[in-house]
Amino acid sequence: MAAQNVARKLIASHLVSGEMTPGAEIGLRVDQTLTQDATGTMVMLELEALDLDRVRTQVSVQYVDHNLLQADERNMADHIFLRSACRRYGLWYSRPGNGVSHPTHMQRFGVPGATLAGSDSHTCAAGSLGMLAIGVGGLETAMAMAGEPLHVTMPEIWGVRLTGALPPWVSAKDVILEMLRRHGVRGGVNRVIEYHGPGLASLSAMDRHVIANMGAELGATTTVFPSDGRVRAFLRAEGREDDFTEITADPGAAYDAAEEIDLSALEPLIARPGSPGDVVPVRDVAGREVHQVVVGSSANPGLRDFASVAAIVRGRQAHPRVSLDVNPTSRQILLDLTRTGAAADLIQAGARIHQAGCLGCIGMGQAPAIGRDSLRTFPRNFPGRSGTKGDRVWLCSPETAAAAALTGEITDPRDLPMDPPDVRLPETSSADHAMLEAPPPPEEACGAELEKAPSIGVLPELDPLPDELDVPVVIKVGDDVSTDEILQAGARALPYRSDIAKLADFAFTRLDEGYPDRARRAGPHAVVGGRNYGQGSSREHAAIAPRHLGLRLVLARSYARIHWQNLVNFGILPLEFADEADYDRVRQGDELRIGNVRGALAGGGGIEVRNLTRDETYRARHRLSPRQRDLVAAGGQIPHLRARGPRDH
Amino acid sequence: MAAQNVARKLIASHLVSGEMTPGAEIGLRVDQTLTQDATGTMVMLELEALDLDRVRTQVSVQYVDHNLLQADERNMADHIFLRSACRRYGLWYSRPGNGVSHPTHMQRFGVPGATLAGSDSHTCAAGSLGMLAIGVGGLETAMAMAGEPLHVTMPEIWGVRLTGALPPWVSAKDVILEMLRRHGVRGGVNRVIEYHGPGLASLSAMDRHVIANMGAELGATTTVFPSDGRVRAFLRAEGREDDFTEITADPGAAYDAAEEIDLSALEPLIARPGSPGDVVPVRDVAGREVHQVVVGSSANPGLRDFASVAAIVRGRQAHPRVSLDVNPTSRQILLDLTRTGAAADLIQAGARIHQAGCLGCIGMGQAPAIGRDSLRTFPRNFPGRSGTKGDRVWLCSPETAAAAALTGEITDPRDLPMDPPDVRLPETSSADHAMLEAPPPPEEACGAELEKAPSIGVLPELDPLPDELDVPVVIKVGDDVSTDEILQAGARALPYRSDIAKLADFAFTRLDEGYPDRARRAGPHAVVGGRNYGQGSSREHAAIAPRHLGLRLVLARSYARIHWQNLVNFGILPLEFADEADYDRVRQGDELRIGNVRGALAGGGGIEVRNLTRDETYRARHRLSPRQRDLVAAGGQIPHLRARGPRDH
Repeated sequence: MAAQNVARKLIASHLVSGEMTPGAEIGLRVDQTLTQDATGTMVMLELEALDLDRVRTQVSVQYVDHNLLQADERNMADHIFLRSACRRYGLWYSRPGNGVSHPTHMQRFGVPGATLAGSDSHTCAAGSLGMLAIGVGGLETAMAMAGEPLHVTMPEIWGVRLTGALPPWVSAKDVILEMLRRHGVRGGVNRVIEYHGPGLASLSAMDRHVIANMGAELGATTTVFPSDGRVRAFLRAEGREDDFTEITADPGAAYDAAEEIDLSALEPLIARPGSPGDVVPVRDVAGREVHQVVVGSSANPGLRDFASVAAIVRGRQAHPRVSLDVNPTSRQILLDLTRTGAAADLIQAGARIHQAGCLGCIGMGQAPAIGRDSLRTFPRNFPGRSGTKGDRVWLCSPETAAAAALTGEITDPRDLPMDPPDVRLPETSSADHAMLEAPPPPEEACGAELEKAPSIGVLPELDPLPDELDVPVVIKVGDDVSTDEILQAGARALPYRSDIAKLADFAFTRLDEGYPDRARRAGPHAVVGGRNYGQGSSREHAAIAPRHLGLRLVLARSYARIHWQNLVNFGILPLEFADEADYDRVRQGDELRIGNVRGALAGGGGIEVRNLTRDETYRARHRLSPRQRDLVAAGGQIPHLRARGPRDH
Repeated sequence: MAAQNVARKLIASHLVSGEMTPGAEIGLRVDQTLTQDATGTMVMLELEALDLDRVRTQVSVQYVDHNLLQADERNMADHIFLRSACRRYGLWYSRPGNGVSHPTHMQRFGVPGATLAGSDSHTCAAGSLGMLAIGVGGLETAMAMAGEPLHVTMPEIWGVRLTGALPPWVSAKDVILEMLRRHGVRGGVNRVIEYHGPGLASLSAMDRHVIANMGAELGATTTVFPSDGRVRAFLRAEGREDDFTEITADPGAAYDAAEEIDLSALEPLIARPGSPGDVVPVRDVAGREVHQVVVGSSANPGLRDFASVAAIVRGRQAHPRVSLDVNPTSRQILLDLTRTGAAADLIQAGARIHQAGCLGCIGMGQAPAIGRDSLRTFPRNFPGRSGTKGDRVWLCSPETAAAAALTGEITDPRDLPMDPPDVRLPETSSADHAMLEAPPPPEEACGAELEKAPSIGVLPELDPLPDELDVPVVIKVGDDVSTDEILQAGARALPYRSDIAKLADFAFTRLDEGYPDRARRAGPHAVVGGRNYGQGSSREHAAIAPRHLGLRLVLARSYARIHWQNLVNFGILPLEFADEADYDRVRQGDELRIGNVRGALAGGGGIEVRNLTRDETYRARHRLSPRQRDLVAAGGQIPHLRARGPRDH
């Protein structure tokens, strides 16, 4: 057998169906799952619909990190529901305030060599430990909990060789920003990014988390790092050295595509407002007035990231114009910041220390004023994701964020009149499980009741796909539309995450306030999209809510992976223009027709889409496997399973 | 001259008009003002309307503590506006995250012997330092900033003699809960509560803050404590011993009413859901399941309050059912908690540490689930104030809160299997001014521009009171209706605090969803209220918003002080039933008529209110001074001042 890279080793060791040829559908055994509260309430309703008895994974964890504002009664009702579902189905429950799923999972549950499916697009962060960690929709996570394999398209493996070491004031965030600068938000589509080379030695496991996390912004299926001495050191610090296994690429292992980054040549980078892919050197935009600096999120979650900021602002004051917001990623990290004195340094410098969680990263609070620049160590800055229409959110490293906090302007940290901070971290973290509730033993769990407040809705009924589609285009959107724009999270919408009928009122409203009304009037309808349709968050609500309003067909230039899968899972037919230029010919309001849908899908060739309004015909293609064709035809995964009848779960 | 109590000394030293006879209108010189962000944006618009050049007080401070969630762009836009107004008019600006106004003001600005007017009902907390501190409407605070005297009704002085010392597990909160147990939410109306006696020596200045703060819940005009050795020690710890002046009651000083509390006989008390006045011993309700415990707010703001909780939970874990939320009242207190190790104890026990501010106390987040019991160290639990319709919020001491956090049930802390905590506080606090921006010197200030985002509205135009009132009763409400029910704060409404036209959609909706629509259809209209109408928060929005919808007349059994004054300030005629039984005769929808309003107000006798629908006549009375009659007739303070023409401000 040829020399293998890490990604292929991980895939091969979990392969249950398919061929490891890029583009083919493969099935993978799932060892662990992760859900968070924004997607988790729906997942628990799905487990109920699947009539599951108890999760069949090694470890499944439900985190509560997204909606912590609790502006009304729905939030705590969700927590009570999630906790009861964890007891019922045998999941770990990470209580509100325990921390953001990705770093917490890495610290407490991550195991090199294991697979992880998570209903959050940044699940890929666990690739930092040599895991194969894939962000998917909620329903696929539920299926994985039920012991079903996870189906993905076999990706290309993209080897990124790191050389050199990072200069002072430059950190892991700048590595992934460099990848985004080079390749943009579609650069990683259908790829696993595998980092290798001598530069790795200078990156801690948590640095790698920073890089792996934002692989999602490149559109990659996931990111993997080898499990090496730095991973062993991390697990030792977390009191789990026993969980270590070495996993490295075989000497001479090949990659489907190759890239090289000289770490020593990097400089501080920043993504401009609107897209994580619009990256420039900080110096190019230095001097702009800044009103807010936010430090935290899964993209810069480590003790080091906060301690660096603390070291830079120590004995200084945040600029009076700036709100310096610090979102500890976990209780554990806040505790370590407190013990090391870094918390006191931050408070004295004028930081607002918030509870542990995602907060502003998911638009739960911390919304900036219109047109006022906000610098964040977050992974995403899609328009409006902050909660403000007309926001100006920049993405950068902790060092660049701290520099702006001090000067009140975008500032290359190398231009600060000080030496680079000397950050020393404790050898062991203050790991403990106090806010993690273990699942009860099976004999107790079976009797546990699901505690459903009236604000917990029900899964919508999903009927089969009609065989003749005759549908108006209710909205046409451009390239790189994110799931934040299709179905916003944030403080207004997220409280309704458990109630699809109400949540549907927010569908597409970031782009067009009129969509929900038009869709309701139209009933069965179509959406036309540009390239990379549905990038960003994994939330399946972006499929379910439009489906609830009648969406049956999406016709786009290309799709982001997770959203495409979510469309399939909820019985929405995702087609691609065979000729991308046809995109320009369709208008909102046009009436589209596809006859004999099942026959067209089964045939090897393309599909004809008639535009009745313009009397034109477009060629379209689908990328559905036979399994997926059945799902769409049945109206989605849930009716498909129901039709299949009960299984011996 | 007879022996004087502290309250009369403070009043006498600031009296500019009127006689110190209970019931008479007096004018007081105001040394300091305090505004917070929920009321402050309106105050700044009022300063603009008053065409003020620069505040004429010794100290005026604008705090940002209420709305810190920032769910959309309005919040930061408000902060930018407030900061610009502070520069323009010469106020201190306490930045978001610096802390809750009352303890922060006490720590940084409080001066024994001074007067303080604040647009927040808990302004009275500063009575802990021997100040005369009165919560009033925003417009009166604006007038005070403009150098106008504050007009209040000369109160009775209610002497409360404290003897003994508090037993273990019992703390200052139980003292004020005992007052509420004895006298209910109307017990202090038209009174200043003055604490005296040997029991005082055992209460620190911050303990006294706890007691003075919740004097507001008794409906008292304010609360005063003497300025004695404990106050000197407090100022010394804050690095301001120079600000100390001794102010004590003369030996043998008399009081208009007298009360005695033996501190040593007190036990842990708790207010049941719905009213701060519904107080029972904790033991009477022990054993109820608790889902949330929140520690913080101006009612238990001191380092001691948090350190006690930390000492009780140290080395233990919050019950898995309970969300233990800790809201540090200020950056300074969070810093001291961090330095003393108490923060680490809290975090390890599973507490969620939130940013410094009011948060759940004002319904900004932390809303409990419906029907799930929440124990809070807050001052208020009016129905729905938490953000949840159908909430069950209890008010208690930090000790009782900590006990429930550990057991997951309402628990008398004396029943915990442990010794009482031994809380030792540092001798000096980590006082600093880093998040307080000083006002610029006048020559810089004049040129400063007000930064008004489009979300900052304008003051509504207010027309004079018609001389013939012919108005339908659009809503009739019961006793003790709070301003939270008239115009809710909280996460839904508070973002619109700067935009009256939008805010008006929330008027009375906690009680009756239909009010805004009916009021808009009716135009000029009346509201009928029960006893203690408008208790609670000082927010003048509860007058302005209904006024914007056409409210011209309130007919109630009796009023809470601040809201009554706010009605007058915004040109709404507040009348009382001469015969309380007539309240029962009026129905919603009845058409009321008062002819020759100005003549009736000027006459010494009562006012006739015709009920055209029922063909009845009620006698009503007003308590308006001649000055106040002019205000109401003019349509409120602002048109009155405009009619008077510009002054040499």
